[in-house]
Amino acid sequence: MSSSLDHAVRKALFLGLMLIAAVSVRSAALAQSDPLPSWNEGATKRSITDFVAKVTTQGGAEFVPVAERIAVFDNDGTLWCEQPIYFQAAFALDRVKAMAPDRPEWKNRQPFRAFLSGDKEALAAQGEKGMLTLVGAAHSGMTTDEFAKSVSDWLADARHPRFKRPYNELVYQPMLELLGYLRANGFKTFIVSGGGVEFMRVFAEKAYGIPPEQVVGSSGVVKFEMGDDGRPRLVKLAKVEFVDDGPGKPVGINRFIGRRPILAFGNSDGDHQMLQWTMAGSGARFAGIVHHTDAEREYAYDRASKIGQLDKAWEEAKAKDWTVVDMKQDWKRVFAFEPE
Amino acid sequence: MSSSLDHAVRKALFLGLMLIAAVSVRSAALAQSDPLPSWNEGATKRSITDFVAKVTTQGGAEFVPVAERIAVFDNDGTLWCEQPIYFQAAFALDRVKAMAPDRPEWKNRQPFRAFLSGDKEALAAQGEKGMLTLVGAAHSGMTTDEFAKSVSDWLADARHPRFKRPYNELVYQPMLELLGYLRANGFKTFIVSGGGVEFMRVFAEKAYGIPPEQVVGSSGVVKFEMGDDGRPRLVKLAKVEFVDDGPGKPVGINRFIGRRPILAFGNSDGDHQMLQWTMAGSGARFAGIVHHTDAEREYAYDRASKIGQLDKAWEEAKAKDWTVVDMKQDWKRVFAFEPE
Repeated sequence: MSSSLDHAVRKALFLGLMLIAAVSVRSAALAQSDPLPSWNEGATKRSITDFVAKVTTQGGAEFVPVAERIAVFDNDGTLWCEQPIYFQAAFALDRVKAMAPDRPEWKNRQPFRAFLSGDKEALAAQGEKGMLTLVGAAHSGMTTDEFAKSVSDWLADARHPRFKRPYNELVYQPMLELLGYLRANGFKTFIVSGGGVEFMRVFAEKAYGIPPEQVVGSSGVVKFEMGDDGRPRLVKLAKVEFVDDGPGKPVGINRFIGRRPILAFGNSDGDHQMLQWTMAGSGARFAGIVHHTDAEREYAYDRASKIGQLDKAWEEAKAKDWTVVDMKQDWKRVFAFEPE
Repeated sequence: MSSSLDHAVRKALFLGLMLIAAVSVRSAALAQSDPLPSWNEGATKRSITDFVAKVTTQGGAEFVPVAERIAVFDNDGTLWCEQPIYFQAAFALDRVKAMAPDRPEWKNRQPFRAFLSGDKEALAAQGEKGMLTLVGAAHSGMTTDEFAKSVSDWLADARHPRFKRPYNELVYQPMLELLGYLRANGFKTFIVSGGGVEFMRVFAEKAYGIPPEQVVGSSGVVKFEMGDDGRPRLVKLAKVEFVDDGPGKPVGINRFIGRRPILAFGNSDGDHQMLQWTMAGSGARFAGIVHHTDAEREYAYDRASKIGQLDKAWEEAKAKDWTVVDMKQDWKRVFAFEPE
C-alpha cells in the first residue's frame, strides 16, 4: 500500500467512524425527545401519536405511502387566534383608514363615511354588505405585489388589542409542534382556510413552515395586464372568485390538492365538510377539532359565537369519536411567546 | 479495550468504509453521466445546463434558494403530443360514444345526433359551441371519482390514430429528462396547462413524476353534496370555472402556486403570457419553447396551426433570445418508446 493511499484509507476510516457516531447520537436524541412538548399527556395527545405511528409503520395494516400523507389545517382559530375579530378583517379596516387620505371621495360615501368618522350606529345600519365593501376596498384595485406589501407592512406595524403583539405571533405553539411532527413523519402539510389565499401566503411560510404553493384559501378575481412600462402585472379586482369555507373546503381541496387528505384539523362548523370529506376516505383517517375553552390564556367560545361557531361539527365529532382538543386541558402552552 | 467494544469499533470502521466507498462511486457516476442524454449537444442544451448551473451555484451572483426554484411546464405539445387533436378532446369524443347507450335522448338532440351518426356536415354546422357541448357532456354529471375512473379506463383502452399506442405513452423523452434533471437540482416542477386539471392528474404522477398537487389546469365547477348513503361526494357540473390558458396562465400560477416561476416551458401562443410573467421577475430566468419541426418523428406546425399555434410567442422569443427547441435538430429521441 503506498503511503498516500494508506493515508487516504485511514482518513476514510476516521471520517466513517465520525459519521456513524454522529448518526447514533442523533437517533438517540430523536428517540428520547418528545415531538409534542406543549401537549399534556392524555387521550388527545395519544390519539395523534397513535395515528401517526399507525400510518407510518411499514408493513402495518394501516400503512400509508409518503405521497398520500396529506394533512390539511384550517387557519383562523386552528393555527392562529381569530378573536376578537378575524385578523384579516382587522387588516382590512386598518388598511381602509390608511388609504383614506388618497380617497377623498370616501368622505361622502357609505359605508366609508360611517366607518371613517367612527359612527358605529350608521356603520351597523350598513350591515354585512357594508362590511364586505370595506374589506373589498382593502383587497382590490392594486397589483398582487402591492397587496402582498400592504399585508407585510401591516403585520410589522399592527398590534393585537389584547395581547399587544404582532398578529403573526399569535400562533398556537402546540399546533406548530404538530405541523413539524407530521412533516418529520413524511406528511405534506397544507392550509385550507376561508381566509384569503394571498393574505395568508405573506406569513404562512415563516409562521408555519408552509410554502405558498401549499396554501389553499378564498380568492378574488385577478386579471393579467401588460403595463404601460411593458411589464406584465396581475391586478386584483373587487369580485369574489371562490369562498373556501364550509362546503367550499372539500371543493378547494379537490381543486388545489387533487387528493383526499388523511388528516384534517379545524375548529368550527366552517371546517365540518372538510372533516367529513377527509373521514369518508378508506383506510386510517384522523379528524381533529380545536375547542376554545381557555378564556384566561386565549378565548372561550363555541356554539353561540359569531366568529368560529362550533356546533354541528362538534356533535358529529362526539358521535364519531373524532379528536376534540380541549385547549385548557390539553395544551401546556398556548402561544409561542409564553414561557415554556 | 474490551473485546466486544473492539468488535463494535471494527464493525463501525468497516461500515464506515463501505459507506464512503458507496458515496464515492455514486458521485463519480453522477459526474460522468449526462443528465440529458436525448438532447443533442449544442446551444439549446447548453442554454439549459448553463441556467441550472448558474442558479444552483452556492455563492454565485445568480444563486436561487431551493424554495424559489419553481419550474412550470405546459402539457399539450410541451410534455406530450397534441396532434391530430388535443388528447382530452379525443377522450371526450370517445366518452360521448361510450355514454350514448345510456342517453337515448341524445339521438334526437344536436350536436349529439350529428356526432353519433357520423354526419360531419351537420356537426360542422354546430360550430365550436357544438364541440364544447360534447366535451362538457363527458366532463359533468358525475362525481370526481367517477370522472377519474373514466379517464384511466380510456387511457388503458384508447390508442393514438397514428402511433397506435396509449395516449399517455406519447410523452417526450427529452422533456422527461429535463423534468428529472431540474428536480435533481432542487427544482419543484409544476404543470400549468389549458387542459383540465382533473384529467391531467390521472396520469401526471406516473407519466411525469408530478404529483396531483403540482398540476394547475382549467376546471369546471364542482359541488359538494351529502349522498343518500350519508357519504359526501363532489359532483362535476357543466359549467366552466377557470380557463388556464393565455392570460389565464399567470393567473393560475398566482392562484395555485403563489410565487413567480424562474423557469417556464411552453410551445404555443397559449403559453405566451406565462413566459412573459416568468421572465419579468428579477434575477436569472429561463423561457423555453418547443418548436414542432419534425413531421417524420412527430409533427411539424407553428404559425398556421389551429392546434398549438406558435406565432407571437415565437416573435418575442427571437427578439429576446429565449430558448427555442428545434425538435428535429435538438432531440436525439422524441418519444420514450423509440429505440435509444
